[in-house]
Amino acid sequence: MPDNVEQDTEVKKLALWIRLISNSNIIEKEIRNLFRSEFGVTLPRFDLMSALYREPGGLTMGELSKRMLVSNGNVTGIVDRLQKEGLVKRWVLPTDRRIYSAGLTQKGRNDFKILADRHRQWIGDILGGLKDDEVTPMIEMMDRVREVLKVRNENKRAKK
Amino acid sequence: MPDNVEQDTEVKKLALWIRLISNSNIIEKEIRNLFRSEFGVTLPRFDLMSALYREPGGLTMGELSKRMLVSNGNVTGIVDRLQKEGLVKRWVLPTDRRIYSAGLTQKGRNDFKILADRHRQWIGDILGGLKDDEVTPMIEMMDRVREVLKVRNENKRAKK
Repeated sequence: MPDNVEQDTEVKKLALWIRLISNSNIIEKEIRNLFRSEFGVTLPRFDLMSALYREPGGLTMGELSKRMLVSNGNVTGIVDRLQKEGLVKRWVLPTDRRIYSAGLTQKGRNDFKILADRHRQWIGDILGGLKDDEVTPMIEMMDRVREVLKVRNENKRAKK
Repeated sequence: MPDNVEQDTEVKKLALWIRLISNSNIIEKEIRNLFRSEFGVTLPRFDLMSALYREPGGLTMGELSKRMLVSNGNVTGIVDRLQKEGLVKRWVLPTDRRIYSAGLTQKGRNDFKILADRHRQWIGDILGGLKDDEVTPMIEMMDRVREVLKVRNENKRAKK
């Protein structure tokens, strides 16, 4: 492609990216404030509990880091605190005793469900101006972006 | 609306939000790593320079904080460092001598352009799997989300 055409498509992708990160940060900031003011809970803590909730068999600490959507939290520190509060248990992996796994206790699962319900309501409110038939194609488009990122990541790994 | 219908629309919006933040964080992480490895520059620093670049007349420190997309940076600290490197100037606002404004120097503008060109190329590469005719409706949808957030914010303010 000639340079100026190549640059045009880059500019469009840049415009998409700026809108994506800007919307994402506006919503994230609001959710962060709501978790703090209503529950005294940080967003990374909710995010970590959410990852564990989806895996009743537990996750190794390495997997847990990878599964978090908001990645700036200190995983070990959060797990320590949740363990002290009786919300998480940690155990050595029987197949490799150098590796720790963590999982939510029943109390942890119950607590998480309360947070998750409120989180769902907050998002419903924040995006309340969107009609259902607008949301569906948006989800599809975000899945398409995810797919593009995944394919690229796989190609990068294959090259190594 | 009956409770279960209400909950269905919340679930869809939650699905959208999770994809939005997840895609956004994947791309942000990659851009953050590229800025660090290729230029030794943090993402908040780029973000701050970008906000100043768009306002040749300068921005007050308060406005500057609001304009940043990646909000976890320490604005004053970054401006201090950029000033020491001769990339930013700071001055007292003639109309209110308690307020500081900051702006990019010519050297700052030149430096930023180099970073911005690479940033555009990286995004073009990261989202390279998307065709142009896929990107346009995605931009429109992100503008629609932005609009919904803006209207909600205005209504919230009006209620106060």
